[in-house]
Order: sequence, then structure tokens, then C-alpha cells
Amino acid sequence: MQKFVNEVEDLVNESIDGFIKCHNHVIVATSCSRTLKYIGAALENKVGIAIGGGFGHAPAFMGYLGKNAVDTVAIGNIFEPPSVQSFFIAIQEANRGTGVLCVVGNYEGDIANANKAIAQAGDAGIVAKLLVVDDDLGSEEPDNRRGNTGEVLVWKVLGAAASKGYSLENLEQLGLKAVSAIRSIGVGLASCIIPTEGRPNYLIERGTMEIGVSHHGLFSQTTCKLRSANDTAQIMLNLLMDDMHIQSKQEVCVMVSGLGNTMSSELNILYRQIHTLLEDAGVLITDRYVGDFFTSLDMMGATLSIMKLDDELKEMLHVPAYFVSVNHFSCLGE
Amino acid sequence: MQKFVNEVEDLVNESIDGFIKCHNHVIVATSCSRTLKYIGAALENKVGIAIGGGFGHAPAFMGYLGKNAVDTVAIGNIFEPPSVQSFFIAIQEANRGTGVLCVVGNYEGDIANANKAIAQAGDAGIVAKLLVVDDDLGSEEPDNRRGNTGEVLVWKVLGAAASKGYSLENLEQLGLKAVSAIRSIGVGLASCIIPTEGRPNYLIERGTMEIGVSHHGLFSQTTCKLRSANDTAQIMLNLLMDDMHIQSKQEVCVMVSGLGNTMSSELNILYRQIHTLLEDAGVLITDRYVGDFFTSLDMMGATLSIMKLDDELKEMLHVPAYFVSVNHFSCLGE
Repeated sequence: MQKFVNEVEDLVNESIDGFIKCHNHVIVATSCSRTLKYIGAALENKVGIAIGGGFGHAPAFMGYLGKNAVDTVAIGNIFEPPSVQSFFIAIQEANRGTGVLCVVGNYEGDIANANKAIAQAGDAGIVAKLLVVDDDLGSEEPDNRRGNTGEVLVWKVLGAAASKGYSLENLEQLGLKAVSAIRSIGVGLASCIIPTEGRPNYLIERGTMEIGVSHHGLFSQTTCKLRSANDTAQIMLNLLMDDMHIQSKQEVCVMVSGLGNTMSSELNILYRQIHTLLEDAGVLITDRYVGDFFTSLDMMGATLSIMKLDDELKEMLHVPAYFVSVNHFSCLGE
Repeated sequence: MQKFVNEVEDLVNESIDGFIKCHNHVIVATSCSRTLKYIGAALENKVGIAIGGGFGHAPAFMGYLGKNAVDTVAIGNIFEPPSVQSFFIAIQEANRGTGVLCVVGNYEGDIANANKAIAQAGDAGIVAKLLVVDDDLGSEEPDNRRGNTGEVLVWKVLGAAASKGYSLENLEQLGLKAVSAIRSIGVGLASCIIPTEGRPNYLIERGTMEIGVSHHGLFSQTTCKLRSANDTAQIMLNLLMDDMHIQSKQEVCVMVSGLGNTMSSELNILYRQIHTLLEDAGVLITDRYVGDFFTSLDMMGATLSIMKLDDELKEMLHVPAYFVSVNHFSCLGE
């Protein structure tokens, strides 16, 4: 396998260890090797934000630790849920006495393990609540959508609100509002390689693309002929606009994220068309983020996420934050 | 070609246009479509920093526009030098009356065009100087090294110093010192695809790797059997340590950059071993950056850069900066 690895079964642990070594002035390991904690900011009484999910989605999940961001993260194996123990330690370490909001994508295993950890935390006297993000319009079941890149926007909103002193109840309400305001859709051009297997987890034939692809490369909605970037952008945008009933004058946040092996020039070209189409429709783009925000190993493809904004969501998006992976070159706000 | 593109000959222009649309509150096009300018910060009397190079190295070059960072950027076609005109406009737009330092990698075409633009600027009454970065230890000719990822560290140091009021002469001296303190080495695992040709620009056979690969996938030094991540890290580090004569107690900045299609987990694993080896050697890592800082389209591979620090270089590295591509998710410092 043409990758920088040692023994492939050590990939996750060695990567986490390297991440800690790189950021050890602001990140620490905890009593659970799969739970990391941000120590750069210590706001008293702030409600904790704990998140968790499988490995392979960099910069998610651990890259979003930071100031006015995420406090603790529980990390599973590749595309697998974190253990109950890692969620429990994440909740325990995020708690400053005012409770913890635990945020996961809508995946059965993640929810089950997070809920068990929340129950254990309750036994230990820690109040924790679960927030489930289900933004993926490409899901097989319309009433049971998966989590997708929209999770990143939810973390950003919640990290800001927690730093502003929101109570656990108010944070949960804000989180539910954010989740209901976000939809995402992915398009895959080539599958990722699962390192432990050394081969793609499924096949996208050259000359075709998968609309509705998930972060795990499964359950894709439709295979179609590969289109131009502009046509692809329009297909993605139309799906979101129709579902979300976005009207003229609506303020929105737009996120275009690569899935791993997608060049930023491609993301810029997709964004260019999305921007033009939204402007033509009279939609007001107040915030836009283009880059690799939630990947799927080395998958080739992109996701488009849109959040409908109200004043509160917009205010939270605009609170400056320090994310470990995203900001470490800037020496800002640690 | 499995890429998000429209007509492939429009890739560069459409990507630049999408980049401007995404960042149009802080970035503007100029009278030359291949020259962009940062408008978020307007320090009076600051010496300007203009940089330039070929397209395909995202986030270089345009992503490093920003506050306490780069003022203007000249952009060539894929792996080709910017035109004289785009360099000239970059110099003109970066000038606030106190001169401009124009920074390029050591490539014949870039230097020739930048020098012509500097001469034109002189005719127009603008004092500009050229700084050439030649950090690539993998170069064919030891006395004529190419530019590599170390350019990013030079931009960061110069951006900080300019914001602190350094004169053009002092900035040039600092730049020369930074350049002499940096070496980089690249390892390629798979070539990039040149979009206009739709195929790899050369072949790296599976099971082998190229030590000393350049950002353009050419002139690589040695082909060898693919090694483990730890062995590869050691090979890269030994080359730099030997050339730079790095001693115990020396303070250094370490940068590990992906070349495009390299997972952050792989970069973390490489960094892990580099960190361990440097610590074992008694070298003091005061700054470390791991991520995609200077890519080569979708090449698979990584570069290791090390800068030997003195107090001045370290101070400049620690000045907070806002880089458009790197920071835009954080709403910081615009």
C-alpha cells in the first residue's frame, strides 16, 4: 500500500500519538487513550462540549478541539464508533460542574455507546445530554438521515455558545435548532482505501459519480454519468434548496468540503458555481467555508452543506475560535 | 478525468475566481487577473510582501495572503511562472511607499520574470528587492537548490517582521537569514496528474518511493524500495540533520507537509517519529506544523522542512497571523 504507515493495525494509535506530540502544549491524552482533551482555555462554569466518532475523517474529530470550540473528543477505530469508555471519559473530562453536551452523528453504534456513557456519567453525578446530527440528505431513509459535514457547523455554533455561558438546556435547544437548519449532500468520484484492508471499500467506475455518497462510502443514492463541475454543483445545490425550501433573501452559511483526495482548486470551482447560483436566486451568503473540513480517508469527492441562519446562529458562527488542526500555523488564540 | 472541472483549460482561472468569491471580504482581484491582493489590514508605511509562483500548490500561493502575512500574490499557470505583468502588479499593489520585498522559489522562470517586474517597478519609482528561497535538499545540483515548502516559513517570518515595521533592507537581511536556516526534503509515493494532460507526469512504481522528489515531480534524487513510515521519517531527518549540522540544544521549527493526496493520519505518523528522533538527539522543537502547507496537485507524498531558530526568527514565527486559506473557518483577525 502506497502510504506512510508502519504496521497497519497501529495506524490509528500512532496517528493519535503523533497528533498529541504535535499539539502537546494544548492537547493532552486522558486516562483513556482514545479520549483527548483541550487544555488551552479553562473557562470556569462553561458547559462542556464532548464529541466523538470514527477515525478517518480528519480534521474531524480531534482537529476541532480548541478554544470556543470542542473540549473533549472520543475516537473510534476507522469508521467505527468510539467505545463507551472513551465517551464516558470524554464527558467526565469535559465537565466543569455545569454539565456536558455530547454530540454525535446519527449512527446507531455511536448513539448507543454515547447513551451508555451518559447513563454512566449520570451515576457518577454528571449531567450530560445527547445531541444527534442528521444532516445528510443522501441517506437511504429520508426519515433517518445520517450525520455528515454539517456536524462541523454544529460544533462551531455550540463551542461559541458554551463560551458565552449558555446553560446545558439552552445549549441543547440551540443545537437542535442548528441541526434542523442544516442539510448536506455528498458526491463521490472515487472510493477511499480502507488501510487495514489495503483496497477500496467499493468501486466507483471511471466516468461515473455517486450522488449522495456517505462519509463511509456506503449507501450511496444514485450512480450517474460524471458531469462537469458546474453541473455537479447545480445538482447538489438543487437537492438542498428543494428540501430546505430556501427562499430569496434567506441568509445562509455555505460549506464545501473535500473528502480527502480532492484538490482545493476543484473545491474552489464547485464553490464558484454554487455562489453564482445562490446569488442569482437572491439568497444571501453571509458565511462560506471551502476546504477539507470532514474527510473520508482518501476518498475523492466533495460535500456541500448549507445552514439557514437566524440572528443567533449567525452570531455564534462569527465568534472567533481556535481549532487545533485548523489554526496551529497561525499562533492565534491558544 | 475523475475531477470536479469544467473545461480543463479553464481550471486555473475558475479556481482563482471561486477563491475570490469565497474570500471577497478580504481579497480582491487587481487590474491583472492573475494578481490578488489582501485588503483586510492596511498598516501605513509597512513594507509590502509580494510572492508568486505556479498554480497547483494550494494553499500556496494565494492562501497565504492575509494579515501579518502576504500582501499580494502573482499566480502562473500550472507549474509555470507568473508573468512579468502579474509580478509587476503584485509589486505595485503591495507598495505603500516604503518598498516591496518580492519572494520567489529558486526557479529560473520565476526569477527572470520577477526581476523584469522589479526593473519595471524601479522605472515607476517603486523600490523592490528580490528574495530567492532555495531550501530543497533533494535538488539535482547541491549548489543550485530549488525552492520547496520552506518558502512558507519564510513568508510567515517576513509577514510578521513587515508588520513590526522592519525596513526593506532589514527585511531582506532577515529573509536571507531565514532562507539560510531552512532545508527541506520531499518523498513521493505517487505522481500527480497534470489536469491539462489527464495523466501522471511521471511514474512511481508501486512498492517504491522517490526520495528528493520536487514539487513538480521532476528531478527526483533516488528511487528506493517503499519503507515503513518510521524508516522514511528517519531517512528524511538524517538527510536534513547531516546537511544542517543540527546539534543538541539547537532550537528548531519543524514542518511536515502533505503533497496533496496524503492523509493527515500519515503526516501525524511521520511527525511522531521525527519528534521522537529529534528529542532523542536533544534537539529542542519549539514550533511544529503538520498539515497540507505546500502541495503538488494530487501528488502522494510529504515534505519535511526544518528551520534552525535564533531569537529573532522565533519571535517572528510567534507573531499571530491571519492566513486566508488556513484561518477562514475561525473568523479570526481579519
